[in-house]
Amino acid sequence: ADAAAGKVKAKKCRNCHGIDGVAKIPIAPHIAGESEVYLQVQLKAFRTGKRKHEIMSVIAKDLSDADIADLAAWYSSIKFTIEMPTD
Amino acid sequence: ADAAAGKVKAKKCRNCHGIDGVAKIPIAPHIAGESEVYLQVQLKAFRTGKRKHEIMSVIAKDLSDADIADLAAWYSSIKFTIEMPTD
Repeated sequence: ADAAAGKVKAKKCRNCHGIDGVAKIPIAPHIAGESEVYLQVQLKAFRTGKRKHEIMSVIAKDLSDADIADLAAWYSSIKFTIEMPTD
Repeated sequence: ADAAAGKVKAKKCRNCHGIDGVAKIPIAPHIAGESEVYLQVQLKAFRTGKRKHEIMSVIAKDLSDADIADLAAWYSSIKFTIEMPTD
């Protein structure tokens, strides 16, 4: 899989997920740093209809296996660190 | 919604998602910092069967609206920062 190619392909994801994987709208998930396995499983589920969403089902329909692998490689390559809320 | 109560309720999420929302297994998503809206929509989708997963469908079945609100409040309260890969 080619993360750099995935970054270019991420142009079609940008409006909701951002190129950086930080969601731009509340109903979209952050996908920065998600594992390649999880991203591939979800994109393939949207493509086959196992998982449904009015936007993702449409977008995933045209994705090839290579597109999915590259997109998963790109978004999983983004590192993240967390900060637990101080009680 | 009560994030502190959500942190306690997150004990049943811990094995796959961690109390900190950083996935402990590759097939589970990171949920740290996901928006409350997204988390609520997904948990309710698993509860109604709109979204299916062998583990999540079972776990979500017993969640009340208050449980879902508290869990979403907890995980969305975890801050995260990203670091883009240097090309």
